[in-house]
Amino acid sequence: MTNKTITAPLGFLAAGVKANIKDWDKPDVGLLVCERPAAAAAVFTTNQVVAAPVIHDRAVLPGGRGTLDAVVVNSGNANACTGRAGLRDAARMADLTGQATHCPAGRVLVSSTGVIGRAMPMGKIERGIIAAAAGLGNSAEHGESFVRAIMTTDTRMKTAFATVKVGRSLVKLAGCVKGAGMIAPRMATMLGYITTDAAISPALLRAALADIAELTFNSITVDGHTSTNDTVAVLASGLAGHPRIGRRDAAFAKFAAALKDVCYSLGEQVVRDGEGATKLVRVIITGAATEADARKAARAIAESPLAKCALHGGDPNWGRFTSAAGYSGARCNFAKMTCSVGRTVIFRNGQPTSADVAQVAKLMKADAVDVTVGLGAGKASATMLTCDLSKEYVSINADYTT
Amino acid sequence: MTNKTITAPLGFLAAGVKANIKDWDKPDVGLLVCERPAAAAAVFTTNQVVAAPVIHDRAVLPGGRGTLDAVVVNSGNANACTGRAGLRDAARMADLTGQATHCPAGRVLVSSTGVIGRAMPMGKIERGIIAAAAGLGNSAEHGESFVRAIMTTDTRMKTAFATVKVGRSLVKLAGCVKGAGMIAPRMATMLGYITTDAAISPALLRAALADIAELTFNSITVDGHTSTNDTVAVLASGLAGHPRIGRRDAAFAKFAAALKDVCYSLGEQVVRDGEGATKLVRVIITGAATEADARKAARAIAESPLAKCALHGGDPNWGRFTSAAGYSGARCNFAKMTCSVGRTVIFRNGQPTSADVAQVAKLMKADAVDVTVGLGAGKASATMLTCDLSKEYVSINADYTT
Repeated sequence: MTNKTITAPLGFLAAGVKANIKDWDKPDVGLLVCERPAAAAAVFTTNQVVAAPVIHDRAVLPGGRGTLDAVVVNSGNANACTGRAGLRDAARMADLTGQATHCPAGRVLVSSTGVIGRAMPMGKIERGIIAAAAGLGNSAEHGESFVRAIMTTDTRMKTAFATVKVGRSLVKLAGCVKGAGMIAPRMATMLGYITTDAAISPALLRAALADIAELTFNSITVDGHTSTNDTVAVLASGLAGHPRIGRRDAAFAKFAAALKDVCYSLGEQVVRDGEGATKLVRVIITGAATEADARKAARAIAESPLAKCALHGGDPNWGRFTSAAGYSGARCNFAKMTCSVGRTVIFRNGQPTSADVAQVAKLMKADAVDVTVGLGAGKASATMLTCDLSKEYVSINADYTT
Repeated sequence: MTNKTITAPLGFLAAGVKANIKDWDKPDVGLLVCERPAAAAAVFTTNQVVAAPVIHDRAVLPGGRGTLDAVVVNSGNANACTGRAGLRDAARMADLTGQATHCPAGRVLVSSTGVIGRAMPMGKIERGIIAAAAGLGNSAEHGESFVRAIMTTDTRMKTAFATVKVGRSLVKLAGCVKGAGMIAPRMATMLGYITTDAAISPALLRAALADIAELTFNSITVDGHTSTNDTVAVLASGLAGHPRIGRRDAAFAKFAAALKDVCYSLGEQVVRDGEGATKLVRVIITGAATEADARKAARAIAESPLAKCALHGGDPNWGRFTSAAGYSGARCNFAKMTCSVGRTVIFRNGQPTSADVAQVAKLMKADAVDVTVGLGAGKASATMLTCDLSKEYVSINADYTT
């Protein structure tokens, strides 16, 4: 098997170990290490209630860019709303990772995911970091153990891989992500780590990631609840052998396109694995006065529990889509509005068409559904990915901490 | 039995009849008639996708006030997204009501509620209006038949009654409301009708209703989805015998207080009967920089599916409350934030307290729960009523049109 995990790009080692942070049978402390200082960029949650590791990381990567040697992650505890003790614990994770992997603590990114408001079980985490550092390797198995270590309610591993020719070099990009609930589009929406052996400046890497995040991770929603811990980081080892990308040239464009493919794939996988999700829904807004309006309307539909229940039941209750656009705050020209499911137009110029409702119900029962609403107010458009709302979502979330 | 329905105040007649608009065993066309021209005020949905009857009614009551002789309502079809035919149908309902009750069509308020985007079954509705006009009466049974006629997924009748002494007269106020899903706080959030025999000018009645709606109907949410048909109307017959209330004096204050009690009770009943709801939740925000901020934060918590699922399961996962406040857009001073369930403080100054989590879980299992989040950013506050999110909500809404 070819390695397509985060250890595939040259220069990266990973490990995931069982630290028993929760009573589960999976790794829950992960380490990702670059053999040389990696150019790095990251985007973080915009929530004002922000977890200790994110506060720590913003100091490590001022402006969302800099240099990283390692990433340490735990699942099972978010280290959020934990006060000063939480900040000390995040710093301690960085220190210990630095010692165990022989790098400066100031070049270690720290992430946590799990329940909010509980003290970190630092004994377990410290033993986990030491064990992970001792078990680092660059095989596919090592990469996968890291991916498993960051998962919580995810039902499957979410990874993506791409290659791109830059000069004469084949550049590899590999990403992984965790996220299924508490997913909403405000900067970053999950924990995600992307490795590449491209040679690129931190500033350009950050510019590429920020643009791409807007169209990928920030264009997905499961439940509209922005997490306290969201982090997406890219680490570039620079070992692929091509001249360093230092400006917005053709090589940059090719690299950015490959990075976008990886991010889009990871985002789509998050939605497909949304808590309780049975289908992937693309909400497409056309005819908006501005792109911001298009995004507002797309988000209102993608986050309406009524729209999501109709999508779950395959119920052709399209009035829930048009009415959500109507209250989104986006300008609507009601007399020119349209609504389609798949390619079937069911509402045009403010009136229902003669489309066969039974046919629409059939389209809505598929495992991927496109809902398009035209606002009739301009020429801007936007697309957002979401999933349906099922009883399973309620089951998962009515009883999570206990 | 004393009559406490909308026919209790002097001057009002009502009826509800089975027109078989849907295949259900309940009245679905209702008429409310005032024996003399009533001072009237109304608030309507702010959704840009607006149902034909609301467009009609805005012309009947410019600025939300004027004179009404009758209200005609049907359930089972919202007459929304129905184009020009829908507007003709709403006008036809007013015309027919005017003919059948001997009043000008221009003084008839028209409301519809039900599925969006379907042509109105006008034959059935016309026969219903004629039958209702023939069956008008002022008994409690007549009042109740009107209430049943406006219900859709409601599981119970929602009514409120109050009396207030104005001068030497005992003024009666009676209200009824329908609404269980598609409930969100933007102006009005349901169909609601309030009758009173108070004598008051339309302008003052409108001023009172607009202020009160902000604190009652606009401070409740079930699913954050603003309807296309929301309407709350007050009709005042002026028959109670006291001098007409024409300015903001003591009599006005007493009347407004009674009207607020009726509206608050109706709003609370809507939330208690929220689709799939098992408990009533008061979300209280304190320490906000502005009242608008307090409302934003309250709404984010009240509409977060994660928070609502935790409330459903009695899961003391309070990080979902603080994190929702954090992404609401309201200013938060994280280091001074607090969170309580009931009177138990579980988070203070950015740190968890030593509160017993099992005790908090117990509080959350009650059928009424208070969640308080202090933002630490100022002195403003706001309260919003909501309910939990259950599997039953998904059942009801995954299969509603079909």
